Amino acid sequence: MLANAISTLDMKTGMTKKGKRCFSRIGFIGLGNMGSHMARNILKKGYKLIVFDVNESAMSNLTDIGADRASSPAEMAKDVEVIVSMLPSNQHVLDVYNLKNGLLSSAKRNSLLIDSSTIDPFVSQTLAKEAKKLGLNFLDSPVSGGINAAKDGTLTFMVGGSKENFELAKTLLNCMGSRIIHCGDVGMGQAAKLCNNMLLGISMIGTAEAFNLGQKLGLDSKILTDIINSSSGKCWSSELYNPVPGILKNAPSSKNYEGGFGVTLMAKDLGLAQSVATKVEATIPLGSLAHQIYRAIIVQGFANKDFSYVYQFFKG
Amino acid sequence: MLANAISTLDMKTGMTKKGKRCFSRIGFIGLGNMGSHMARNILKKGYKLIVFDVNESAMSNLTDIGADRASSPAEMAKDVEVIVSMLPSNQHVLDVYNLKNGLLSSAKRNSLLIDSSTIDPFVSQTLAKEAKKLGLNFLDSPVSGGINAAKDGTLTFMVGGSKENFELAKTLLNCMGSRIIHCGDVGMGQAAKLCNNMLLGISMIGTAEAFNLGQKLGLDSKILTDIINSSSGKCWSSELYNPVPGILKNAPSSKNYEGGFGVTLMAKDLGLAQSVATKVEATIPLGSLAHQIYRAIIVQGFANKDFSYVYQFFKG
Amino acid sequence: MLANAISTLDMKTGMTKKGKRCFSRIGFIGLGNMGSHMARNILKKGYKLIVFDVNESAMSNLTDIGADRASSPAEMAKDVEVIVSMLPSNQHVLDVYNLKNGLLSSAKRNSLLIDSSTIDPFVSQTLAKEAKKLGLNFLDSPVSGGINAAKDGTLTFMVGGSKENFELAKTLLNCMGSRIIHCGDVGMGQAAKLCNNMLLGISMIGTAEAFNLGQKLGLDSKILTDIINSSSGKCWSSELYNPVPGILKNAPSSKNYEGGFGVTLMAKDLGLAQSVATKVEATIPLGSLAHQIYRAIIVQGFANKDFSYVYQFFKG
Amino acid sequence: MLANAISTLDMKTGMTKKGKRCFSRIGFIGLGNMGSHMARNILKKGYKLIVFDVNESAMSNLTDIGADRASSPAEMAKDVEVIVSMLPSNQHVLDVYNLKNGLLSSAKRNSLLIDSSTIDPFVSQTLAKEAKKLGLNFLDSPVSGGINAAKDGTLTFMVGGSKENFELAKTLLNCMGSRIIHCGDVGMGQAAKLCNNMLLGISMIGTAEAFNLGQKLGLDSKILTDIINSSSGKCWSSELYNPVPGILKNAPSSKNYEGGFGVTLMAKDLGLAQSVATKVEATIPLGSLAHQIYRAIIVQGFANKDFSYVYQFFKG
Repeated sequence: MLANAISTLDMKTGMTKKGKRCFSRIGFIGLGNMGSHMARNILKKGYKLIVFDVNESAMSNLTDIGADRASSPAEMAKDVEVIVSMLPSNQHVLDVYNLKNGLLSSAKRNSLLIDSSTIDPFVSQTLAKEAKKLGLNFLDSPVSGGINAAKDGTLTFMVGGSKENFELAKTLLNCMGSRIIHCGDVGMGQAAKLCNNMLLGISMIGTAEAFNLGQKLGLDSKILTDIINSSSGKCWSSELYNPVPGILKNAPSSKNYEGGFGVTLMAKDLGLAQSVATKVEATIPLGSLAHQIYRAIIVQGFANKDFSYVYQFFKG
Repeated sequence: MLANAISTLDMKTGMTKKGKRCFSRIGFIGLGNMGSHMARNILKKGYKLIVFDVNESAMSNLTDIGADRASSPAEMAKDVEVIVSMLPSNQHVLDVYNLKNGLLSSAKRNSLLIDSSTIDPFVSQTLAKEAKKLGLNFLDSPVSGGINAAKDGTLTFMVGGSKENFELAKTLLNCMGSRIIHCGDVGMGQAAKLCNNMLLGISMIGTAEAFNLGQKLGLDSKILTDIINSSSGKCWSSELYNPVPGILKNAPSSKNYEGGFGVTLMAKDLGLAQSVATKVEATIPLGSLAHQIYRAIIVQGFANKDFSYVYQFFKG
Repeated sequence: MLANAISTLDMKTGMTKKGKRCFSRIGFIGLGNMGSHMARNILKKGYKLIVFDVNESAMSNLTDIGADRASSPAEMAKDVEVIVSMLPSNQHVLDVYNLKNGLLSSAKRNSLLIDSSTIDPFVSQTLAKEAKKLGLNFLDSPVSGGINAAKDGTLTFMVGGSKENFELAKTLLNCMGSRIIHCGDVGMGQAAKLCNNMLLGISMIGTAEAFNLGQKLGLDSKILTDIINSSSGKCWSSELYNPVPGILKNAPSSKNYEGGFGVTLMAKDLGLAQSVATKVEATIPLGSLAHQIYRAIIVQGFANKDFSYVYQFFKG
Repeated sequence: MLANAISTLDMKTGMTKKGKRCFSRIGFIGLGNMGSHMARNILKKGYKLIVFDVNESAMSNLTDIGADRASSPAEMAKDVEVIVSMLPSNQHVLDVYNLKNGLLSSAKRNSLLIDSSTIDPFVSQTLAKEAKKLGLNFLDSPVSGGINAAKDGTLTFMVGGSKENFELAKTLLNCMGSRIIHCGDVGMGQAAKLCNNMLLGISMIGTAEAFNLGQKLGLDSKILTDIINSSSGKCWSSELYNPVPGILKNAPSSKNYEGGFGVTLMAKDLGLAQSVATKVEATIPLGSLAHQIYRAIIVQGFANKDFSYVYQFFKG
């Protein structure tokens, strides 16, 4: 029983005290830009993995290196004790989990379902309730860090759910990430991610405005960087992801705004933040406006640029 | 001659090589909340100081401890080689400097005029031009750090003007501050301060929105603080000036939002940033909205609270 | 059969050519502030009416004057050919219509379901699809005009659905409203209402800003009213619902902002507009900000004031 | 004396009762897109006109049809009883009026100075004070209506100043405009124009957002036009200047957004509104954001389009 396994689990090795891996077989659904790397990292640790994706070739890439394939989420769920899902939207998650022919219809009692998609925390909570009725355990566990961190196994996981389930999942999540944070009950992983990313989306635009204004006033951007980073305007965007080309060699701004975290993804996260803020009646004027600004950048044709492109959008 | 003095000046002691202080007598105009402390710190270093303020009792406080008084800016300017001004607005600065009966009408050739007021950089530049015509040297040199830093002599000075004048002023500014930064030509001190404070005003509101949203979603504010401060949402406001009561013991939010940097002052700086952005046609959507939000907080009756009060404004 | 009835229906009298009312019995669900008046107006025209509400006394008020009561939406649906629903939110509508024990589970084939709630047009479209599978006809038909228009039978109905169903419903809607507008396919009634109300919410705030600014500049509000209403700033809010007390005797602003269209309702409609804009990726910066401003007014304690109260919110 | 002339003035013909024109000679400064047409319309009424512009060919166009030329504002002021100025910015107006070698230095006692430029009302008030000290009369009198109305003599003049000066100016302004409105004391003409145009700038963006959202939701723009224009969303922009191509044949939107009121001019007026709002501490969140949106449109390369182009900016 999973519920018992935890007491004898060595968290560092992912082994139980008797030397067995705690999960004999793991399912993974959603082999996109992020999910494919995450699944590989699980395989690398020696776990038996069964995968599913609607895209056949995405599955082949994983079966070529040792994974098994499932013909549907429901089929997979019958055979494993733990499933990780990594999907692009509320609707995809609902479809994969739904009661009729999704995960929930066939998952084994006591299975652990870990959804690493970034979605509405209320959807996570709804799924957790359905899961609980069926004797299943659910964790929301969205990630931050992007494709490179997915590849390197250095993602941050923000996890919502019971402490017990969190501890159980930690071993597995450690295969894919370097920071595994327990944020509270189910949905709180999503909540934490959305709050962080909303603040990020705002402070990046603020940074772009400040540097653009400074430049128009005749201020050297390197001098302004030094001043801001040693003053009260300091933020992650000014310090580690500066939107002005040439300030930081490895920032997307110095590489024609390629790679990094796309405007579309930021707009998606801000759309989710907006949506939940409306539900709980929270006032988020800058978050709302930030959402609209990234939306305007997409409309002007720069959907695929890194989100720090907002600096160029203002500069023109 | 001031222009010569620099070569023989020992920057650390404020003495010339021959053991004389470089400025025999210093003028100080504007003895308000900030200026009174700054003037005291100059006196403490042993300089001869002559002060002026429209408020008689503000002057008495300084003359009681050894300063001389002037009956007008013009009268003061005749007697000193360097003047520091610390005034509340563009108009006050223009009035004090103006050609008819202000500083500029009687200052001695080669005098150094250091304006530490936070004003429109274009006003600084206009004054610098007028000063130059008269053979005077002008520096804009706004500060950050607030009343406590003014008292402790740990202000940051953001200085705009020639390198030569900057070096000359540094000795004196070091009596009042611990960081003296050269930001570029005249006006760039103001530009740097306004850009930094605009970003600060934005990221504080963003932080308040994120924590308010998180809380309404059920997220513990301490957990969210840990997550944000180790992630991409990190900013000075989340880390060192958190707007949620109880997160940081010494932040104004934990002291009923008293002390600190008042909403009115933040609104003033954002008004200046807005004004110069309009002049140079820079796009600052979040800066503009931040200005309006602090304005709305003032209208609702919270002008004297610390600017992190925006968290309570959203929370209600 | 309803589908046949239309050809012989006299639209003005609501009678078929043979002199019979086209709907022998009508169901009404949701007897709140609006719905109770709407149901009364149907009764007054001599229709047989069966009502349902979760609030017993709301039902009694209608049964006292001749309506029959149903014990559930499902029970009602078995007995009528047409049902009007008037509910406060997406979730309420989904609950009343849902397949398990709601309207859709027992409605008679060919019934006409008219939802006058203001909800997400995508919810309307989902319901319409479910209805169609079951051989049922669905119209979304939100109203404008408020409680007084509901009482007087002068509501405007913005209807989405097939032309045939629209014509069929028109007779009935004419009992409750004076303008029945066909806006396109299912969902377009909601879309039209949300677009109109978003523009209303924006232009009211704009009007409030303009009059507040004018006043602070020394401009007489009556003179400004005359100028704007004969110029390009003219809008419904400046002309017919002026937010400045004393300009229009009967506007809520002249009655302490009581009555009228509450801040909460405006915030609800803007929340829906925001939600659908996010779904279709439309850029609505002023709509978003307007939503946040009404939200801030609610948080400051003025939820029950008319939405023109925004003028006072700015004035302080 | 001008002050006496008014009592015997026939307002319709511009003649005094004794059959003489009230102003024997009129000065006009600023012969740009608007001013050139306005000056022509004065000439057409048979007045003697003396003109000045820094652009020689702009002057030639007027002297070719009978105007005299002045070599400077000061020279002109010596010879006339009334001067109309039509200039692009605060600074231009200040330069033309200034005490040293501008209008104010040489104008005849009791002259009437009418400034039709759109500028900061506080600049108008400053000029009026200077004028008064010199025994001169000042009116601010900005216009609305654009180039076509300037050509056709159908401008609206929003006039600030004493009732007496207003009545005196009316005869002359009637040569150039069809509506001459007294808005209050000096500066109130500017205030009225800025308030109206701010509301216009806001409601145009609101209209663009509503129609763009409607379209993305599947709503026909013609149907939405009908609904909005008979509902509470109605505004001048939806009714008479609809931003959707094809709705109104003669609107700029139907002519590739050419002609009309340029984005740059709208941004200028909103910049002025922002500037005075900051001075009087009025909260104008939508006005501020509208300013930033037009600014962003300029930066993206559409400065010369009509301001209704914002619809395309959102549509992409």
